[in-house]
Amino acid sequence: MKKIVVMGGGTGNFVVLRGLKNFDVELVAIVSMADDGGSTGVLRDDLGVLPPGDVRQCLVALSNSSRLMRNLMNYRFENGGLGGHSFGNLLLSALEKVTGSFEKAVEEVGKILVIKGKVIPVTTHQVRLRMILNDRTVLEGEKEIYLSDQIDKGYSSLFLEPYPKSNPHAISEIMNADLVVIVPGGLYTSIIPILLVEGVSQALRDTQARKVHISNLMNRRGQTTGFKVSDYHNTLVRHIGEDIFDHIIVNDQIPSEELIAKYAEEGTLVENDMHCSRVISAPLLGELGVQSQGDVFQRNLIRHHSERVTEEVMNIVYNL
Amino acid sequence: MKKIVVMGGGTGNFVVLRGLKNFDVELVAIVSMADDGGSTGVLRDDLGVLPPGDVRQCLVALSNSSRLMRNLMNYRFENGGLGGHSFGNLLLSALEKVTGSFEKAVEEVGKILVIKGKVIPVTTHQVRLRMILNDRTVLEGEKEIYLSDQIDKGYSSLFLEPYPKSNPHAISEIMNADLVVIVPGGLYTSIIPILLVEGVSQALRDTQARKVHISNLMNRRGQTTGFKVSDYHNTLVRHIGEDIFDHIIVNDQIPSEELIAKYAEEGTLVENDMHCSRVISAPLLGELGVQSQGDVFQRNLIRHHSERVTEEVMNIVYNL
Repeated sequence: MKKIVVMGGGTGNFVVLRGLKNFDVELVAIVSMADDGGSTGVLRDDLGVLPPGDVRQCLVALSNSSRLMRNLMNYRFENGGLGGHSFGNLLLSALEKVTGSFEKAVEEVGKILVIKGKVIPVTTHQVRLRMILNDRTVLEGEKEIYLSDQIDKGYSSLFLEPYPKSNPHAISEIMNADLVVIVPGGLYTSIIPILLVEGVSQALRDTQARKVHISNLMNRRGQTTGFKVSDYHNTLVRHIGEDIFDHIIVNDQIPSEELIAKYAEEGTLVENDMHCSRVISAPLLGELGVQSQGDVFQRNLIRHHSERVTEEVMNIVYNL
Repeated sequence: MKKIVVMGGGTGNFVVLRGLKNFDVELVAIVSMADDGGSTGVLRDDLGVLPPGDVRQCLVALSNSSRLMRNLMNYRFENGGLGGHSFGNLLLSALEKVTGSFEKAVEEVGKILVIKGKVIPVTTHQVRLRMILNDRTVLEGEKEIYLSDQIDKGYSSLFLEPYPKSNPHAISEIMNADLVVIVPGGLYTSIIPILLVEGVSQALRDTQARKVHISNLMNRRGQTTGFKVSDYHNTLVRHIGEDIFDHIIVNDQIPSEELIAKYAEEGTLVENDMHCSRVISAPLLGELGVQSQGDVFQRNLIRHHSERVTEEVMNIVYNL
């Protein structure tokens, strides 16, 4: 059975894992640990736990348990001191406290949710993401970076503090993978942060696995303004230190004018300017829906179509 | 297999159920729904849910799941907006929200915890306990009543508002029981509140089951000051409307002078003044331990010995 390692932040992982779960493959999700917004941020601050939000989304995506259990994991308390917390986050944090280990907590929730595959935090160290803009403004934390609209004016560095050792299980899964998929997601808040962990880029360069990047659908205004597929690609390549990608999956479906207008404030469509043989181009737009997975800040509602993007990934797997 | 119905509030139920769980009997816990203190009170106020605390204790007592799961259920968050909440309470409340039914939530947690038997809320209506003292002071809620030291000066009424219909499942279990056990616990806050639900006293009078009352060990100062076993007994009989009890289990073990002195502020030992044939007298004092089951207010630390009190109950069952 082929081993597919899926890497990224919360929602991108969710969409890809949910689709791949229906195929006869071994799945591993390696999850960014830089999240500090919403419920996750409050839990980090109040309890000193590791960020549960992105891990929760992966666990739910891989779950074979009842719809009720999945709804419970995503249930968000509405009032009082609990307001804004998703139940799944509280479960992960309470289990981290009781077991003394975030990885053990993830494993236990995996059992409760009868997940297919594994969910692995890229590091088990407490880290904060920081970005220094060209005007020397320091953005503290993923949430602050996510909310900034000044990044497209240039930044001088993006780093995790303290510089974290990677989780050895993550590295070993990358090394043993048949295919590594870097999922779409916030470039500076979900994708690069996973590459900033010590040893991850090295493992991506060293592994014999095929590597595929699923490019983003939309640019985020003030962040990746005007980015084309090659800009995303080149940014990843710069961080990894080598152009490791065997395939780049890009969307060629144009949303309706109406939809583009509706999301104009959020950002614009990513144009594909790469046309070499490794580029796989397909109509990949998902149906629009109310965003119920994310944490506190609103996320882009134009999403990948889970089945269609998965199909392109599986076409690669069948040819391995 | 004999069906034993155990009725009362949180800690009394816990001690008796935990012991009975090891025997080959069918167990049903019928739980008071008047609790409004601590984590439970906050959840009732903030989320409008039914009180989870006493139910949680029964579920944990009957659980056959791992120690980790039981520790998780009783884990209490320490900081921030979550501070004071036990995880199990949050689980029950979130499931009540997701399923729209407290009973369904209890059933689901029962599955997660692999419980032996059933836990049934005595009513599924939102009720508040009220007590009117002889000086016309109104005590609002279980917590206020629990904390009062003026009750021994006399009260004119103790009632649930609004007057709740009983859960039909509770009534049917009482009617089909072989033995009904009324457990020890706060007389005005745990035991009588269960009898104040419409139809419960009637069912206790009508059922063919044997009935046993396990009398309290300690009086609570300002509440049941100077009560003897007959005072507890007569209070229950007055509320039930008939002396239904076939057996009364009382403790005849005297704690050390040191221990009595230590708990003098809390209350004094209940003396046994009933010596008829239905009184079963035995040494029933449990080991002292740190109280970690209860909600926010401190509870009496002199406890029944779970195995010993269970043994007396099982002696009755064997002779049925």
